[in-house]
Amino acid sequence: MDRQRFQQQLEFVREIDKLKQVYRQSLLLDGVRKENDAEHSWHLALMAVLLGEYAAAPGLDLFRVVKLVLAHDLVEIDAGDTYCYDTSANSDKAARETRAADRLFTILPADQGRELRRLWDEFEARQTPEARFAAALDRLQPLLHNYLTQGRSWREHGVRKQQVLERNQLIADGAPELWAYAREIIEDAVAKGYLEP
Amino acid sequence: MDRQRFQQQLEFVREIDKLKQVYRQSLLLDGVRKENDAEHSWHLALMAVLLGEYAAAPGLDLFRVVKLVLAHDLVEIDAGDTYCYDTSANSDKAARETRAADRLFTILPADQGRELRRLWDEFEARQTPEARFAAALDRLQPLLHNYLTQGRSWREHGVRKQQVLERNQLIADGAPELWAYAREIIEDAVAKGYLEP
Repeated sequence: MDRQRFQQQLEFVREIDKLKQVYRQSLLLDGVRKENDAEHSWHLALMAVLLGEYAAAPGLDLFRVVKLVLAHDLVEIDAGDTYCYDTSANSDKAARETRAADRLFTILPADQGRELRRLWDEFEARQTPEARFAAALDRLQPLLHNYLTQGRSWREHGVRKQQVLERNQLIADGAPELWAYAREIIEDAVAKGYLEP
Repeated sequence: MDRQRFQQQLEFVREIDKLKQVYRQSLLLDGVRKENDAEHSWHLALMAVLLGEYAAAPGLDLFRVVKLVLAHDLVEIDAGDTYCYDTSANSDKAARETRAADRLFTILPADQGRELRRLWDEFEARQTPEARFAAALDRLQPLLHNYLTQGRSWREHGVRKQQVLERNQLIADGAPELWAYAREIIEDAVAKGYLEP
């Protein structure tokens, strides 16, 4: 064992514990509290395993999808969760997250830091089938949570149907059948008064 | 899309949200609250990706390790977290968890339910290199959390060094180098008064 290498890995394992305290706008399905990024990432990883058959590209590398979703929110340890419908917070999101990636991934041994950085860049760029499917899951899960908690976080922020459609339509690129389902629940959310028309 | 199949998958995706409310005895590293099973499973999944080089069996299937750790605690949705040093609670743990597996995994379409059940059985049996490495991580992570929070959960429960050694020595089967490190921190925990000799 290369002790210095191991210490860097351990330091990173400690550091990422902080993701468990980064809270999102989505509620848990029982509505008692907001969800955090670590739980959200775990949920996406199992969804990737279970819903892989709906990926737009057949035969994609599901392990890579899982790694993408496990790592996609790590930068929020420094940058915080940016609510997707908050236009002003989103204006400097990329800069904040890039600074976070520069710090976080260099805690690791160089080879592993590069690998995680590549995963994060790939997720953000959404150019590979794996990243497109990972991004589709990352949109679908909070949509489902919003729908199943009677749109509480939409209503709190006065979100409208058109915003939800625009925000989530990239699900179509990664998983067209999941997008068809997403549109159904968006329509139903409007019909039920969870979401403004 | 087979709509009935998709509804079963969705129902399972909803159901597993409950794992985010199953709290363990381990604290988060900042000590403010206990960790839940979903966060713990996410942490293990990233540890599997980052610490794979220490697995006893070179060339093991890391994706399988990740799936094992993502799914290993799902049965606790029904069975609850059983504190590992609580002898009486452990006497009926296997029966409670088997009942939970029988219910939970049959929510899924049959093929996927069987696959998750196989993963859970494999994790519990610890006969494959993947399950041994997954089990090693599942022991190392709370040990690390205990050590880094000055043994608070050990001290609360009056846990002694010998119990910790016995509980964790299976780390040696899955990752001998990580066991060598674990023994170091156990000794140091005793020296620092985090753990009773």
